[in-house]
Amino acid sequence: MGTVTGQWKQLLLNALESNSHLKHSSFFQLATVGSSGRPSNRTVVFRGFQENSDKIQINTDCRTHKVEELKHCPFAEICWYFTDSWEQFRINGRIDIVDASDPDLKKVQQREISWFASSLKSRLQYLGPSPGLPCLSKEPDQEFLDPSAGPDGAFCLLVLDPDQVDYLNLKIDQRIQFTCQLSENGEKCWNSQRINA
Amino acid sequence: MGTVTGQWKQLLLNALESNSHLKHSSFFQLATVGSSGRPSNRTVVFRGFQENSDKIQINTDCRTHKVEELKHCPFAEICWYFTDSWEQFRINGRIDIVDASDPDLKKVQQREISWFASSLKSRLQYLGPSPGLPCLSKEPDQEFLDPSAGPDGAFCLLVLDPDQVDYLNLKIDQRIQFTCQLSENGEKCWNSQRINA
Repeated sequence: MGTVTGQWKQLLLNALESNSHLKHSSFFQLATVGSSGRPSNRTVVFRGFQENSDKIQINTDCRTHKVEELKHCPFAEICWYFTDSWEQFRINGRIDIVDASDPDLKKVQQREISWFASSLKSRLQYLGPSPGLPCLSKEPDQEFLDPSAGPDGAFCLLVLDPDQVDYLNLKIDQRIQFTCQLSENGEKCWNSQRINA
Repeated sequence: MGTVTGQWKQLLLNALESNSHLKHSSFFQLATVGSSGRPSNRTVVFRGFQENSDKIQINTDCRTHKVEELKHCPFAEICWYFTDSWEQFRINGRIDIVDASDPDLKKVQQREISWFASSLKSRLQYLGPSPGLPCLSKEPDQEFLDPSAGPDGAFCLLVLDPDQVDYLNLKIDQRIQFTCQLSENGEKCWNSQRINA
């Protein structure tokens, strides 16, 4: 039996709620594939679901390897382990990269919303030197940012559209696989199945 | 300037020590690439370094997807985030799969050592139904295991041989990249470089 909104989203919202006393509960690991065909994996911050959908938002710097990698292969898998409730969500899907040059006005607007939703400290990072490049002589860090200024050119919104979710609850040894299929009218339809842990 | 033993190993041992009060400090996320070319990502348990080397050991079930994936593409990246000290290690390398059929006696012995080093509860899992397959009618779980019995056929030792490590310390905003090259006599030689966080 399929459902339009996957029940995994409710399980994830519950996990976020029951682990919300831990700062790191909004951190997860994002795996991508590099142009060499080797996997990459790093911790990123959950920036909420996009509006009423099940699409997951991540902020990043356009100058990072992950953006380069996603241009080459748009697929990614999130592994999100909740350390207090012992739940794991593996969320696989395709990532849409929304940068300053996006021609879609709706997406440009979502990027702007995400920019203003992040802290001034977070925004300042995009004005710093290129992440991952060798450290040069101490450049003084920029300390001030106009709070009303729009997204920096390096600011990038990643939107992951999930099509498979593997849920594992280690406290009760239960594992559920959620799989998405598109219906005739292009709507997402989620099915679930209990699988061996 | 290169060093035979990467300084990252000492940083990792320090992080394990300073986060040892947290059960989940020995958990990390392992990314691999599936035969479809899409990335996979899951939480696994650190089972120590192999002897005096910098090779990282993981136990797994031969019947899991990850073993199938590693046969197709042996490269993996560990992302290990320490929630108390705010340190992240991204460890990239090649994985050697050691199963019951391995012709190398030394490796067979290491697999046996890893089996006996894990708890009886951990060992029991390998006697259960195939992980990831649909749940069938309730089979009673096996409750007893002979503590002196050698490794189950499904038990598999994974050994990751790192060739690149990216270390990030979020408390002091410092990032170091460690890269490995083989010397003329085949010995590993690690170099490090400060990079922008």
